[in-house]
Amino acid sequence: MVTGPRTLAQVSEGDLLAEIFPYFAAHDGLLIGPGDDAAVIATGGSVVATTDAMVRGRDWVDEWSTAADVATKAFTQNVADVAAMGAVPTSLLVTLVADPQTPVQWAVDFACTLGRLAQESSVAVAGGDLSSAPTGTLMVSVTALGDLGGRRPVLRSGAAPGDTVAVCGTLGRSAAGLALLQQDLGALAEVDGLRAECVAHHLRPVAPVEAGPAAAGAGATSMLDLSDGLLRDGDRIARASGVRIALDSELLRPDTDVLAQVVGGAEALECVLAGGEEHSLLATFAGALPDGWRPLGRVEVGEGVTLDGSPQAPRGWDHFAG
Amino acid sequence: MVTGPRTLAQVSEGDLLAEIFPYFAAHDGLLIGPGDDAAVIATGGSVVATTDAMVRGRDWVDEWSTAADVATKAFTQNVADVAAMGAVPTSLLVTLVADPQTPVQWAVDFACTLGRLAQESSVAVAGGDLSSAPTGTLMVSVTALGDLGGRRPVLRSGAAPGDTVAVCGTLGRSAAGLALLQQDLGALAEVDGLRAECVAHHLRPVAPVEAGPAAAGAGATSMLDLSDGLLRDGDRIARASGVRIALDSELLRPDTDVLAQVVGGAEALECVLAGGEEHSLLATFAGALPDGWRPLGRVEVGEGVTLDGSPQAPRGWDHFAG
Repeated sequence: MVTGPRTLAQVSEGDLLAEIFPYFAAHDGLLIGPGDDAAVIATGGSVVATTDAMVRGRDWVDEWSTAADVATKAFTQNVADVAAMGAVPTSLLVTLVADPQTPVQWAVDFACTLGRLAQESSVAVAGGDLSSAPTGTLMVSVTALGDLGGRRPVLRSGAAPGDTVAVCGTLGRSAAGLALLQQDLGALAEVDGLRAECVAHHLRPVAPVEAGPAAAGAGATSMLDLSDGLLRDGDRIARASGVRIALDSELLRPDTDVLAQVVGGAEALECVLAGGEEHSLLATFAGALPDGWRPLGRVEVGEGVTLDGSPQAPRGWDHFAG
Repeated sequence: MVTGPRTLAQVSEGDLLAEIFPYFAAHDGLLIGPGDDAAVIATGGSVVATTDAMVRGRDWVDEWSTAADVATKAFTQNVADVAAMGAVPTSLLVTLVADPQTPVQWAVDFACTLGRLAQESSVAVAGGDLSSAPTGTLMVSVTALGDLGGRRPVLRSGAAPGDTVAVCGTLGRSAAGLALLQQDLGALAEVDGLRAECVAHHLRPVAPVEAGPAAAGAGATSMLDLSDGLLRDGDRIARASGVRIALDSELLRPDTDVLAQVVGGAEALECVLAGGEEHSLLATFAGALPDGWRPLGRVEVGEGVTLDGSPQAPRGWDHFAG
C-alpha cells in the first residue's frame, strides 16, 4: 500500500486545478480568468509584459526554501519588473513544471501563497499551465502583465548626465542572506534580527512595487529593478543610456554599515555592489527624489559604472556561467 | 582542449541574447521590445493571454524533434489558444530553461524558427527569460498575447442545444504520427506522403489561426483548440456549457478513412477521438458554418460526449497521469 504524501502522479490535472483555483481570487480587471483557453484582461491601450522562471537546484534548494518562499520570490521578481517600467501590475500567468513525484502539497502551498500575494496587491492570477517533467525537475514560470495608466514607460535608456542615481529599497540584503545560508548560519536567523532580515530577504524578497509607478509619475528618467546586482544592473542603464553611473561609497554606507555587522566589512561592500535578487528599484531623476528614494551617486558623461571615480567591472549573476 | 559544439556554459547570457535577438523582428504593435525589464504592447482595451510549456522527455524527445520542431509546436500551441478565444495573436514571451551543456545551436535554431513563425504571422516576440537548469533539463515556456479587435471572446461555455458542432482542420493526424514514430515507422515518412503528413503534423503542428477570429465574427457560440483530444476537449465544452456534444461517426469519416490507411481502422477512430496535440479548432455555431469548417455533430440537451448516441468516457492526454 502506498503511504506518504500524495504526489502529482496520484491526481489528475483536473483534480489539481480544482485544488489550486480557489486560491486565485476574482478581480475586476480580469474579464475572463482561468479555465478557458486564454484569459482576457482589461487594459488601457497598452500592456506591459514580463516573464521570469525559477528552477529548483538553480534558483532555490528545498533545504532552504519552502513552496511559499518560491511563490514569494517568483511573484516579486515579476511584479518588480513591471513596476520598474512605471506600470501597475495587473495580472499573472503561472506555469508549474513538475516531476510527478512532487507532493501535491507543494503545488497547493505554492498556489496559496501566490494567490494571497496577488490578492494583497490587487493582481489577478489570470491563467497558467501545468506540465509534468523528468525525475527531480521542479520549475515555475510566471508572466506578469501591467498597466501604465497612460504614463510613458520608464526605460533603461533615458538617464542623462547630471541626473541623480537613486535607489528605493535596500542593497545587498539578499546576497548577505545567501552568504549566511551558505555558511549554515541561516539557523541563527531566529535569534538575530538583522541576520533574520537578510535571510528572509533572500528567501522571500519583497519589492517596493508601488514606488515604480510613483517614480514614473515623478519623472524618473530611467529605471530597473535590481535583480543581478548594482554594478551589473547599473551598467545596463549606463549602456542603454550612453552614460556613466558614478556611485559614491559614502552614499552606500547605510547598507554597507548594516551588512558589515552580518558578513564583515569587505564582504558587505561586495554584497552591496554585486549581490543579486534584491529587487529594490534603481532609477535616475533629473529633479528632486520622490519620497522613499535615496541618492547613490550621479549620472556623468562617459561609460560604465564607477565607485568613487574608479571603474568597476560589471559583476553579478550570469545565468549560464559555470 | 575543449572540442565539440559550443554549449550554453561557454557563453554569457548577454552573448546568447545577442545571438538570439536578431531573429525577433520589429513589430508595429510592440511599443517596447526585448531588452528592458518588460515589454510594452499596444492593445485595444483588453488583452488575451495564455501560456504553455514544453519539457524535453515529456513533450518531445530529441531523437524525433529538432529545435525547430519544438519551436513550431510551442508557437502553435500558444497562438491556437489565442485564436480559440476569437482573438488575433499579437505577441509572445519566450522562456528557455536549459542545462548549461545544451548546445548553443539548439537555442539559436529554436529562436530562429520561433522568430520566423512569429514574423510570418505578424506576431511580435516581446520578451522572455533565460535560466540554467540541472543536468539533462531542457524546457521552453511561451506566453502568447492577443487582441480581440473589439469582439467578445468566444468561451467554452456558450454552446446551446441545436448548435452544430464543427471543426476547422484535421483530426487525429498528430496521434497517428506519434503512433508511427513509436512503431519506428517514422523513417518511412519520406517515401509515403500520408505518413509523412501525419509525422509532420505531430512534430510541427500548424493551427488554423486565422479561422479563430473569423469564427468569432461569424457567431461561434463556443470554441477551443483541440489540444487534448476530441472527447476530452468536447467534454470541456459540454461541461462548461451544460450540454451534450453528440458526435456522428459518419461525419468523422473524412478523417477515419484517411487514417485507416496509416494506422489501421480500429486505431484510426481512436486517433480521431482521443488523439491530442492536433490544434485544430473545435467550435459550435447556431447558424451556417463559416468557410473552412465542417460539421461533426450536434449540441443536444444532456451532458458529456456521445458517438452515434453512445456515451463516451472522456479520454485523452492528462499531464500527470502515470
